[in-house]
Amino acid sequence: MRTQVGIIGAGPAGLLLSHLLHQRGIDSVVLESRARDQIESTIRAGVLEQGTMDLLTEAGLGARMKAEGALHHGFELAFEGKRRRIDLTALTGHSITVYAQHEVIKDIVAARMADGGKLFFSVSDTSIHGVDTDKPSIRYRHEGEAYELQCDFVIGCDGSQGVSRASIPQALRRDFERVYPFGWFGILCEAPPSSDELIYARHERGFALISTRSPNVQRMYFQCDPKDSVDNWSDDRIWAELHARVDSHDGQTLVDGKIFQKNIVGMRSFVSNTMQHGRLFLAGDAAHIVPPTGAKGMNLAVADVRVLTQALKAFYVENRTDLLDSYSATALKRIWRAEHFSYWMTSMMHRIEGASPFEQQLQVAELEYVTTSRAAATAMAENYVGVAGAQM
Amino acid sequence: MRTQVGIIGAGPAGLLLSHLLHQRGIDSVVLESRARDQIESTIRAGVLEQGTMDLLTEAGLGARMKAEGALHHGFELAFEGKRRRIDLTALTGHSITVYAQHEVIKDIVAARMADGGKLFFSVSDTSIHGVDTDKPSIRYRHEGEAYELQCDFVIGCDGSQGVSRASIPQALRRDFERVYPFGWFGILCEAPPSSDELIYARHERGFALISTRSPNVQRMYFQCDPKDSVDNWSDDRIWAELHARVDSHDGQTLVDGKIFQKNIVGMRSFVSNTMQHGRLFLAGDAAHIVPPTGAKGMNLAVADVRVLTQALKAFYVENRTDLLDSYSATALKRIWRAEHFSYWMTSMMHRIEGASPFEQQLQVAELEYVTTSRAAATAMAENYVGVAGAQM
Repeated sequence: MRTQVGIIGAGPAGLLLSHLLHQRGIDSVVLESRARDQIESTIRAGVLEQGTMDLLTEAGLGARMKAEGALHHGFELAFEGKRRRIDLTALTGHSITVYAQHEVIKDIVAARMADGGKLFFSVSDTSIHGVDTDKPSIRYRHEGEAYELQCDFVIGCDGSQGVSRASIPQALRRDFERVYPFGWFGILCEAPPSSDELIYARHERGFALISTRSPNVQRMYFQCDPKDSVDNWSDDRIWAELHARVDSHDGQTLVDGKIFQKNIVGMRSFVSNTMQHGRLFLAGDAAHIVPPTGAKGMNLAVADVRVLTQALKAFYVENRTDLLDSYSATALKRIWRAEHFSYWMTSMMHRIEGASPFEQQLQVAELEYVTTSRAAATAMAENYVGVAGAQM
Repeated sequence: MRTQVGIIGAGPAGLLLSHLLHQRGIDSVVLESRARDQIESTIRAGVLEQGTMDLLTEAGLGARMKAEGALHHGFELAFEGKRRRIDLTALTGHSITVYAQHEVIKDIVAARMADGGKLFFSVSDTSIHGVDTDKPSIRYRHEGEAYELQCDFVIGCDGSQGVSRASIPQALRRDFERVYPFGWFGILCEAPPSSDELIYARHERGFALISTRSPNVQRMYFQCDPKDSVDNWSDDRIWAELHARVDSHDGQTLVDGKIFQKNIVGMRSFVSNTMQHGRLFLAGDAAHIVPPTGAKGMNLAVADVRVLTQALKAFYVENRTDLLDSYSATALKRIWRAEHFSYWMTSMMHRIEGASPFEQQLQVAELEYVTTSRAAATAMAENYVGVAGAQM
């Protein structure tokens, strides 16, 4: 089999790239190791930046997001018994949409299917070959048969544990990493919203985030030991912990409900530099990981794809390679901004084991500042909606 | 002897308080353990915030500052071979003056002397008594004789090592502290300015700050081991180190000169909460210490004195105690803002031993952001000029 662009991974990065290339007349094949129903049901992030919303809408993928997603113009920071609002729209002119990542995936898969896109699920034994030539290929197995996909480019969108990044020799790239000593315990519950907007709460017992999914389903998180097990947490214990961390803040009261999903995720920051080797390009989690605090993961994947789409279009339409050559440098600017923002927000909001009283008080001082200085609030807001960058 | 306000310490806080109280018809006595020529010659900080400039001017102490100090409208951040300017005046409408702390002290001592102010230098064996009564006193020795100064209030402006803070029982206050694993090596040299404005440089060899004193005398600093000795540093070695850290940045070249003063200072953050016990109030370094990076030390002392002057005036003129009662809470708001800012700027600019490549790259990402986002630059600038606070 032959295609122009071979894409490994059907997460938001791989699927969206395939869709955008199709719209520009460029052929691609997507190979995914998981089953379709698995990628369409795995609970992940849920906050779309303005630029992500815009790109999905321009690409014809925005109808259900607009109908079922919730447009938010701000969020709340809760600390020291206070609740303070960051008015995203007033500060930046932009907003965010709360719409789950697996819903975005469903929308793109449906569009690719409708367009006759070549998506192969449940493939195995994927390997990448010849990326330092102009005839790279991907070998894989599908339904018991071995295949080789010949292509002009291989795009690695297969996440942190995939084969793509590992196919760039370690000597040619530098890894930057930080592992946080805490995780997030996430739940989905059947309940009405406890708040119109997201609440990020700093509490001496640990961080909590009150998010939402729909009028009847809510998403909540609380900081936990990443090595803990969901089996240790009964519904009663979970609610007691969430109430303890959130309810103290200025009249806020959580609304309980039946918990139907629980999971624990570890938290890590990671950047691979470079994101390119010959004809192999990395996008999304394959190249970088952020802790979920700033809600940047899926948005960074979409931003990578935007840069890569322009670069591939320039190659095929104008025979230019300069945008491909500069892909890594271009993408890394936004990535490091998001890495710093995610680290900053994580550090400010979480209980840090072993932090001195001085360091704890710095967290409070910074929250006090961010919620009382227009400049500082604007800096936080422009990062949150994803427009922080060169304005001077 | 009897006075209304007994002040321990003739640094900027104690002297300025005495001067401002005098202007409001309130009598005070200042007791200082060092000799006058010693306090008038010790090299310390040199950046005055807008509010400090304004207060000194309003108090009739601004003439020499205005004539000999240098008004600066911005400073430069140097990193990764770049130089980027923070335009304080464009971003905040305010500016700073570079004018050495010991010159401020000379100006206030001269004013106190001209007004017949009671300043006693070289006192010893100072102790504080009865601060939980309304008749506190200070005992001390001066020129071989023992004295007791009876007063309504005792104000501790005697720095971090003085007797004042130690006179508040440890059980009644909480100390917040951070000791940094590096210090600043400071020099004074005979040379023309290397730059019109201050340069804060982040370099892999360590931080450097190019400051100034006059057209012929420059002040420079570089990050060092706080346990190092100035004896290990010849002039040649100092210049080689400064050139290595500063010259690489976009055309910048330091101008050498004869070094006539060298010193090493350790770096520490410290806050005492409370700053009051009965009739004893702490101001300036007696209550809080910041690392010098944000140039906040003297400015915080002046801000404490502003709050305390209003509170004492309200007591004597209107028989109100509410401003005295809230002194600690009022002052600590500004103090924690400055503590956070100083910590933040220190952490962003210094070489941190043992920092991971990820953490090093975060420093660069944050500098890149602060120098390209108007919101982030404004946040930095409003802190630097001292107007960060409640604007929302």
